[in-house]
Amino acid sequence: MSNVTVARGVPGASDLADALLRPRSIVLVGASGDESKANSRPQRYLRQHGFEGDIHLVNRSRTTLFGERAYPDVKSVGQPIDHALLMVPAKDVIGAVKECGEAGVTCVTILSDGFAEAGEAGRKHQDDLMKCASEVGVRVLGPNSIGLINVHRNVALSANAALSASKLLPGRLGLISQSGSAIGALLSRAHARDIGFSTLVSVGNEADIGIGEIGRMLVEQDETDCVLLFLETIRNGTALAEMARYAFERGKPVIAYLLGRSRIAQQISNSHTGALTTDFVAMETFLRDSGIMRVDFLESLFELPPLVAGRKPPKGRRVTIVTTTGGGGAMVADRLGQSGIDVVAPDDATVDRLAARGVNIKSGPLIDLTLAGTRPEIFGAVLDELTASDACDLIIPVAGSSAQFHPENAVAPILSPRANAKPMATFLAPEAAESLRLLANGNVAAFRTPEACADAVRAYLDWRQPRALPADDLLPAQTQAAIAKALQAGGLNELRSIEILRDVGVPTVDCRVFATLADLNEGAHDIRFPVVAKVLSKDIQHKTEAGGVVLGITDADHLKQAAETMLARFKSASPNAAIEGILVQPMVKGLTEVLIGFQRVPNIGPVVTVAAGGIMVDIHQDFACRMAPVDTVAAMEMIDAVKSLAVIRGYRNLPLGDCEALAQAISALSRLALFPSIESAEVNPLMVLPKGQGVVAVDGLVIVDTP
Amino acid sequence: MSNVTVARGVPGASDLADALLRPRSIVLVGASGDESKANSRPQRYLRQHGFEGDIHLVNRSRTTLFGERAYPDVKSVGQPIDHALLMVPAKDVIGAVKECGEAGVTCVTILSDGFAEAGEAGRKHQDDLMKCASEVGVRVLGPNSIGLINVHRNVALSANAALSASKLLPGRLGLISQSGSAIGALLSRAHARDIGFSTLVSVGNEADIGIGEIGRMLVEQDETDCVLLFLETIRNGTALAEMARYAFERGKPVIAYLLGRSRIAQQISNSHTGALTTDFVAMETFLRDSGIMRVDFLESLFELPPLVAGRKPPKGRRVTIVTTTGGGGAMVADRLGQSGIDVVAPDDATVDRLAARGVNIKSGPLIDLTLAGTRPEIFGAVLDELTASDACDLIIPVAGSSAQFHPENAVAPILSPRANAKPMATFLAPEAAESLRLLANGNVAAFRTPEACADAVRAYLDWRQPRALPADDLLPAQTQAAIAKALQAGGLNELRSIEILRDVGVPTVDCRVFATLADLNEGAHDIRFPVVAKVLSKDIQHKTEAGGVVLGITDADHLKQAAETMLARFKSASPNAAIEGILVQPMVKGLTEVLIGFQRVPNIGPVVTVAAGGIMVDIHQDFACRMAPVDTVAAMEMIDAVKSLAVIRGYRNLPLGDCEALAQAISALSRLALFPSIESAEVNPLMVLPKGQGVVAVDGLVIVDTP
Repeated sequence: MSNVTVARGVPGASDLADALLRPRSIVLVGASGDESKANSRPQRYLRQHGFEGDIHLVNRSRTTLFGERAYPDVKSVGQPIDHALLMVPAKDVIGAVKECGEAGVTCVTILSDGFAEAGEAGRKHQDDLMKCASEVGVRVLGPNSIGLINVHRNVALSANAALSASKLLPGRLGLISQSGSAIGALLSRAHARDIGFSTLVSVGNEADIGIGEIGRMLVEQDETDCVLLFLETIRNGTALAEMARYAFERGKPVIAYLLGRSRIAQQISNSHTGALTTDFVAMETFLRDSGIMRVDFLESLFELPPLVAGRKPPKGRRVTIVTTTGGGGAMVADRLGQSGIDVVAPDDATVDRLAARGVNIKSGPLIDLTLAGTRPEIFGAVLDELTASDACDLIIPVAGSSAQFHPENAVAPILSPRANAKPMATFLAPEAAESLRLLANGNVAAFRTPEACADAVRAYLDWRQPRALPADDLLPAQTQAAIAKALQAGGLNELRSIEILRDVGVPTVDCRVFATLADLNEGAHDIRFPVVAKVLSKDIQHKTEAGGVVLGITDADHLKQAAETMLARFKSASPNAAIEGILVQPMVKGLTEVLIGFQRVPNIGPVVTVAAGGIMVDIHQDFACRMAPVDTVAAMEMIDAVKSLAVIRGYRNLPLGDCEALAQAISALSRLALFPSIESAEVNPLMVLPKGQGVVAVDGLVIVDTP
Repeated sequence: MSNVTVARGVPGASDLADALLRPRSIVLVGASGDESKANSRPQRYLRQHGFEGDIHLVNRSRTTLFGERAYPDVKSVGQPIDHALLMVPAKDVIGAVKECGEAGVTCVTILSDGFAEAGEAGRKHQDDLMKCASEVGVRVLGPNSIGLINVHRNVALSANAALSASKLLPGRLGLISQSGSAIGALLSRAHARDIGFSTLVSVGNEADIGIGEIGRMLVEQDETDCVLLFLETIRNGTALAEMARYAFERGKPVIAYLLGRSRIAQQISNSHTGALTTDFVAMETFLRDSGIMRVDFLESLFELPPLVAGRKPPKGRRVTIVTTTGGGGAMVADRLGQSGIDVVAPDDATVDRLAARGVNIKSGPLIDLTLAGTRPEIFGAVLDELTASDACDLIIPVAGSSAQFHPENAVAPILSPRANAKPMATFLAPEAAESLRLLANGNVAAFRTPEACADAVRAYLDWRQPRALPADDLLPAQTQAAIAKALQAGGLNELRSIEILRDVGVPTVDCRVFATLADLNEGAHDIRFPVVAKVLSKDIQHKTEAGGVVLGITDADHLKQAAETMLARFKSASPNAAIEGILVQPMVKGLTEVLIGFQRVPNIGPVVTVAAGGIMVDIHQDFACRMAPVDTVAAMEMIDAVKSLAVIRGYRNLPLGDCEALAQAISALSRLALFPSIESAEVNPLMVLPKGQGVVAVDGLVIVDTP
């Protein structure tokens, strides 16, 4: 257990937020007197950025550091301390935490590395650290954190070199990052655009205080409108989801940049942060279902907020572009189109209203005003009418050279009073630093590149509200009892797996089991052929590959022979496997085969997957995921998201499949996630029959967590 | 014919390049005295940027413009003129061109719009314009061009507002753009980075002088190292490919940004430039096979050149990242991974050599030097060893905060003497304008965003040399004669299509034709069943849908009955179709079905496609394209690029297909493109048999161009 959570009462939360983000007194443990050392920076940065509380220094061998008094240890400080920054070698960290606890320090931020990110020994060391912290009652940020910055309170409590900047710009974005260096990258890039932050926190290994807990503190800050996350992994999904829900309710959107789509980034995340969860699809699914937007571009992270702050997810996806530069507008439109977002031309009513105002729009997918659009009254008239139009959900104003040479003119129509009356994402085609700054100061989302603009619009249009928490009565008590009973039996063979799936509402194939060949000889006479026969054993995985499945059995003799052969094979090949008999099922042929399943992903929770069956799933990576449980509406969206399932959705002249029954089966299976002891469940294949005829699970596997 | 090419001799080319790009005297026709009008700009810009030749002004109603003398028409100028800029209304353009011709003007650049980009009437107007230009012997840039800029010669012959910049920065990039406004966007963004251009040309509708011809002029300029293209379409593929080959041979790479992947951008391109060719896949294929790199990001276009100038395409794809910021390196690595490019850790030899120099590298996919790497000698040592290493093909140096606060330190190790000794793409994680400028001035490729960095590296690694021109003896004379004869027959039914495919070397199924039912009754006795029967007629498309194909015929009676039914059906349903009989082929079952074909794409040429057969092709857009003809090596690369064909390449325990025979069939079919009268050819399906057993075309269609 590396994520030990220190027990605490709710009343302490505010104290912790104060001590962590608004400390009145700080001690820097391991501060250095050598200016070239990173450990010397926090003292310098705190002074430089005007920290108003007390700064105490601890250094084992020196009595002054840059002219300020230094103490040999924490207890010698002799004054109340809210927050300690630990910069001592890893081996000395536990001792320092203990000292802090004894001195009544509320929380420590640990910059030292050599913990969970450093392999097994480090992980053990981190566990010991948290044990000590818990005992002495100290809360921990880090280890392997670069510190935190509360801009509005002048708390530059970090060794991040970005603090060398002469001034920090107060703003309304909160940033929480698992990467320390990303804080410097984002801070400097945003500053250059006049975009400021309220608070920036490097969470390091999240051994104690995690993103969820800090996020909640940021949401509670009046200074923060939006919470930005730079993520390499997810360590405590429950807390993160709760925070996102809390933020959503308060109209403070959460936006994440998530590393790790590629295998290589997953390796880096492992080696660099000690992350255990690197399943990108699961993380992406989790974020979306938690109501967290996800951007693909670094700068979109701080460019997007004005588009979403105070808003809810979009109701429509109709994007209209108004531009003074055809090429500039086309670049954004092209990228949007690649994300499946079509730019729509203004409707006739809008065109007519503009004509009445003397603005004549040529037909075409963009509103290309060319040179005339550089006159603010023309551009403004179009923005007015698009804002008033029911046929447009989001406006992308694009400006050309005027943004470079006449910034005030170019941005005037985009700024108040009409700014953000409707969601708005501005792209400036030329280098136009001053226009970008004016727009930032006017709180309008503006983008440096066409790619980031399209990425942010895509992220906004993909935004969903946090999924509803499952209702308490999702499963009838009787079903719950039946399944609970079935689960008690432990290791589940295919028959019992199918029975559980049937109990929860997944239509399953008829199954008959013959425990012995003698039973089969006796009972085979009333079987309707053709059938499939399978060896029944919870001990045999991958039955098909192991020769434990015979398809297309046409008569009783064939069945007996197949059963004999299989039993003989496993008796010799797997002498220790408990063979429970022969399972006989009718052959079912559907329009297509689908895989449905759920699996618990560590730190994240149960993820439901729908995919086309067969080998093409792997080849095309064609599947859809949601957090379990899903209702039938969400299940239908999943079906729509699997490209290969076009074959049952009405493709060319192919017959329609029973998508409603498929959605019900997905929803039903997903409810098994309500049983904490079920680790995963899968039906592969589920046969989809023609519309109105339902679906049938012909193979099922429910895996119970056996601690 | 909108792309009329004016006849010209080679000796004129240099004269034209001089008049176009280095004119000694210019006339501005339609110059305006109203400062707010775009037509007033060229006079101002030419003066402002120090044009040293003569500037003449023509205005019908005024005798001075901004204090300079204006003439009523071109002939009144009375002095030799190299280059005229026409800014008159569309209706007056032809008259102005005529005047220019009579006055001995060498070339005109036409800013006026209202030509091919404005629909059918405009297209006709453009044809008339070109007829006139041809008659009077004037070469034309545009219409719908925004003009051109030769920075080194102070020729700011454009109305592009980007020229309002107080100074133009001379540089070594040539830019040719189909979008006028893109010139301003690129010029301003590059300037802000100290990246200059040699020449920038807006080609507009390319009615006469096209990208190919101008590109060649830029390649011939000493000032130009690299040719950048901003493309919305391709209008003259032959000239563009020849230019790219010429540029390649001279070590001056060509890089393109191509709009139009999305449907919406294709519409915009139609409405905005009058483009006819909007098939993105064909354009992309054409560019790659022409040796032109393609970037996906606007800024990559001017950031990439130092990485490729003077180089040839890469031999390997092993990328190594050395960074002072783990997060910064991971962002680039993650994007590269998404493009299928794996970052590789340094090999043991490099690690050992570095250890010997006192630089100890932790294991992991990145070389993460952390704070130590901000010391130039450490970072430099790593770059030295990576440059010397045989296990690394491209180096990505990544710098963190040091690039922001200590630019000289941060970039020193990256700059000479080791700069670009190996291909190098630098990413700076923070806002670091000064470091970017230092790198630009040191001619090192440096990227503002992790996304653009990864995009450019991907573009470079995808770079191929221009494809070899087909050898003259690609087809034996006998084959050529046989096919030429077959083609003379005109409209080809399926049988004759299959015969042509067989002639060119595609293995085809045995075919027997029975012209009448009587023939069938007589001849059916020696058929080996099962077979498929098809109605044979060049007049019936989509035979399967029309009920003209019966599969799985098991005996002679079944065959006769099927033939009767089909003949009766088409007699009543398609009374005008010439039915040539019944085609009987053995049923062939392969491991998988493949579609192979080629099609001539207007302005581009013949494009070969390989795709998995069946409906999944459409659903997954899973295919590979090359320009025809392809050799078997290229054909094998195409097979490898089709994901679904994994099933015959050795997937899990599936049997291997005969990929060699498939490659030979693709190559053979592609040779049909050597016959100009063949518009397209397709085999669907081609059955792929197990390795060693070949492939068989069971359906073929060759379409001859009938003017």
